[in-house]
Amino acid sequence: MTEPDRRTPDPVWNAWGTADAASPLPAAVRALVEEGLGVPHRDTPSVPRSEVRLRPSALPADVRAALAEAVGDEHVRTDDDARLLRTGGKSTPDLLRRRGGDAESAPDAIVLPADHDEVCAVLARCAEQGVAVVPFGGGTSVVGGLEPDGAGLRAVITLDLRRLDALVALDEESRTATLQAGLRGPEAEALLGARGYTLGHFPQSFEHATIGGFAATRSSGQASAGYGRFDGMVVAMRVATPRGTLDLGRAPASAAGPDLRQLFLGSEGVLGTITEVTVRVQPTPQEIVSEAWSFPDFATGSRALRALAQDEALPTVARLSDETETGLNLALAHDVGAEGPSGGCLLVTRYEGARVATRERAADLLGRVGGTSLGPQPAEDWARGRYHGPYLRDALLDVNALAETLETATGWSDLDATYSAVHAALTESLQQHGTPPLIMCHISHVYPTGASLYFTVACARGADPVAQWRHAKQAAGAAMAECGATITHHHAVGLDHRAWMTEEVGELGVDVLRAVKSAVDPAGVLNPGKLIP
Amino acid sequence: MTEPDRRTPDPVWNAWGTADAASPLPAAVRALVEEGLGVPHRDTPSVPRSEVRLRPSALPADVRAALAEAVGDEHVRTDDDARLLRTGGKSTPDLLRRRGGDAESAPDAIVLPADHDEVCAVLARCAEQGVAVVPFGGGTSVVGGLEPDGAGLRAVITLDLRRLDALVALDEESRTATLQAGLRGPEAEALLGARGYTLGHFPQSFEHATIGGFAATRSSGQASAGYGRFDGMVVAMRVATPRGTLDLGRAPASAAGPDLRQLFLGSEGVLGTITEVTVRVQPTPQEIVSEAWSFPDFATGSRALRALAQDEALPTVARLSDETETGLNLALAHDVGAEGPSGGCLLVTRYEGARVATRERAADLLGRVGGTSLGPQPAEDWARGRYHGPYLRDALLDVNALAETLETATGWSDLDATYSAVHAALTESLQQHGTPPLIMCHISHVYPTGASLYFTVACARGADPVAQWRHAKQAAGAAMAECGATITHHHAVGLDHRAWMTEEVGELGVDVLRAVKSAVDPAGVLNPGKLIP
Repeated sequence: MTEPDRRTPDPVWNAWGTADAASPLPAAVRALVEEGLGVPHRDTPSVPRSEVRLRPSALPADVRAALAEAVGDEHVRTDDDARLLRTGGKSTPDLLRRRGGDAESAPDAIVLPADHDEVCAVLARCAEQGVAVVPFGGGTSVVGGLEPDGAGLRAVITLDLRRLDALVALDEESRTATLQAGLRGPEAEALLGARGYTLGHFPQSFEHATIGGFAATRSSGQASAGYGRFDGMVVAMRVATPRGTLDLGRAPASAAGPDLRQLFLGSEGVLGTITEVTVRVQPTPQEIVSEAWSFPDFATGSRALRALAQDEALPTVARLSDETETGLNLALAHDVGAEGPSGGCLLVTRYEGARVATRERAADLLGRVGGTSLGPQPAEDWARGRYHGPYLRDALLDVNALAETLETATGWSDLDATYSAVHAALTESLQQHGTPPLIMCHISHVYPTGASLYFTVACARGADPVAQWRHAKQAAGAAMAECGATITHHHAVGLDHRAWMTEEVGELGVDVLRAVKSAVDPAGVLNPGKLIP
Repeated sequence: MTEPDRRTPDPVWNAWGTADAASPLPAAVRALVEEGLGVPHRDTPSVPRSEVRLRPSALPADVRAALAEAVGDEHVRTDDDARLLRTGGKSTPDLLRRRGGDAESAPDAIVLPADHDEVCAVLARCAEQGVAVVPFGGGTSVVGGLEPDGAGLRAVITLDLRRLDALVALDEESRTATLQAGLRGPEAEALLGARGYTLGHFPQSFEHATIGGFAATRSSGQASAGYGRFDGMVVAMRVATPRGTLDLGRAPASAAGPDLRQLFLGSEGVLGTITEVTVRVQPTPQEIVSEAWSFPDFATGSRALRALAQDEALPTVARLSDETETGLNLALAHDVGAEGPSGGCLLVTRYEGARVATRERAADLLGRVGGTSLGPQPAEDWARGRYHGPYLRDALLDVNALAETLETATGWSDLDATYSAVHAALTESLQQHGTPPLIMCHISHVYPTGASLYFTVACARGADPVAQWRHAKQAAGAAMAECGATITHHHAVGLDHRAWMTEEVGELGVDVLRAVKSAVDPAGVLNPGKLIP
């Protein structure tokens, strides 16, 4: 059996990307890993496919019949290859487990509906039959959002939305596009680009992640300073639930009570399946200007970003690396012969379309706060490698290293303290396993009132790297909570952040979420175990 | 007994503003009303205070004791003057009823808590005792949001938040301020202004309305193009419910699940009482530039606004009047000797602080779309009279006219059709009562994807003006629904728009709201009859 056609190929089961996208570890990085981090020289490849332990499908015959009635028999799949590809997401723990041969939590079946009505039908059948439903777009969750948790129900299915891949409507006057949930980033951009428009949403997961996933997880792209977060782009949305359809959003803004769109954005499949969104689009930019800047240190660079955000002078992309990340980028760049800044902190700026008009004011501000222009080259180098990080992680996992990311956001006045606290928590936790870790950070999403902090960690792998990372992440989460920062700026909650939700919204806030879930999913079949403690 | 001190005086019971703010009807308007609209010359003043029929307070002794225990006996008031001032809001039907002597729906008592904990205590007692709670800030609801509806409970109290009037914190680095809910607009601006900051939120109700009301109704100010809607300014909020406190919002943006702030913003006292918000603030602008423009017609002017919004060239204020509103403003301006445009449509622009930097691009765009600059004068005239509209309504109600406003928002591609449909519905409904009405409209809130439409209506008063307006409003609402527009862009839902909520969010959306209400207000005492059908 073959997968239904889609415009972009699927990633493989044991790595971030597609089979042909893997690249060998640059020599400079391997040297850094072994000499700088003290990681013992050892190859730690994935087990081959043949050694993967996959729980057999246990889909009851009556459930299969009900699902086949909803979507057609050929769109209910129970073969191991299909199930392995939907066994969890792409966090480092997810990858380590599967690379080690453990796919025991595989779903019982993959169901591939054709449209919104079929999604409704599947959800209604699953509610009747007591079957858990895990929605699946690009499979790029890094927070355990796709873990097939049967939760004591009769079976667990993955609802793969890839057949919902249409540009439904484009309103050029209102500059909105209606897109189906299963469209991957490049597919959506190709459809819009053919009409002269762009969504401007380019998260690191762009190549694989889907429109529905962007909405369900409150994704934020690398160009968020210019185009906004995905949740801010959504004018209207269509949500399928076991109790029927929600059509939300009738105007650019409304005072007609609570904004229910904001209840289903970020709902991670727990309150329904987003099948369609109407989003703001912009004309494909005719002009793009890139400029890199160097700042003496992270705190000064951060002050410069604050000035841009508070004085309405933001570029389309604004991305500041701390000293360590700047240094590593420099080492990587020199390895491939490119030029980079020497020391300090690198700020990448990029102006697209109408935003080019702010460049002069922005450059003036950056200079006044202590920045030195490095010209376009380092910014263009960044743009070329903008989706590459997770492929580098795959290569690091092959050479006995542990690598992962986590992120948060907070107000400007708490940013330095949060940076220090999370940095210290990660360092302390990870150095218990031997050599000190490499911890890098960047600010890539800025607002008038605050910013995100995105940490990348690499270190020697301990005996139980999954537990090793769990401890480090717990320590980092505690530091964020202590500082009053959010547990996640754009990675979502899933399974991995679920316990922090009580801290985030309080017990009564969790009760409110439970009440909403009971209203739309009384049988409790929607993505069990995620989001709500 | 006297009211607790507050920095700004209270409006009177039978008009929009304070006693000394009333102004006589300009001669030109009276002439227009009688000759232009054919309203028969007749004075229709309010009845005097002595003729107002007020339902006696029926607060059970045990309820009074419980409330006194929560806030102190002197902060539980049952005198008629206090109750009359909280009998409903300031819609034209509200005013007509009270001007006619009908205050039969007065609350049984006014309770004035000192702080968040006292609000929690009052809500808990009311839930235990089965007493309805109507929250009250500035009393400026124009949608029946303050109607004291006992809903078959033992009594109904008004929870007046005026004692919550502190600037709790100002974070100059993050540019956020924490403000208590009972602060009126001018009070909040005075506290912030003394520190060099502004909220930039100036709705027409600014003089009287409160911070809590802005949040609970999703208010939008006249400078929304520059400073944003109130719901967009809220970084964090504190909500009291009968089941305890919700503290929501930990970062400028988060992916930690649904955004529960957006569930309580716009909740109109039905899901809790907002006691405190942390909002974005901006430095008091050092530079303000005003410029008025003339466009040949409303459609061309609207196209110009769309260009500004879609090309990131918005001023701080952008306000376009249709031909009729422009003409009336001209007549009023000539009446006081000022200059104005002759014919066409007037666009008022105003640039404050950092937004001055967009002026050149904006002026270039406006000129290219067909605008002619009129210089600063007409824009400055507008600014001087920016809060005057409702006082004019009071004067019109004194001379046998009916005057009221309503508003909506929709996508740019539906704007012209929505304008025409609502205009036609109002005209058709109101001319049944005699002479054709005067219907004016302006666009005052613009977004990349669409805009608001704000209608002002004046006509001859029929035998039952409350029913006359109810019919007209019903017709306008049906036209909005038919066009796919929202029932309200910034006036909120209250009692008057409640029936449209099913159209707005669907039956399942209403079920979700009911589920949330049950979670936080199981006794059903919070502002009964509002928002949720």
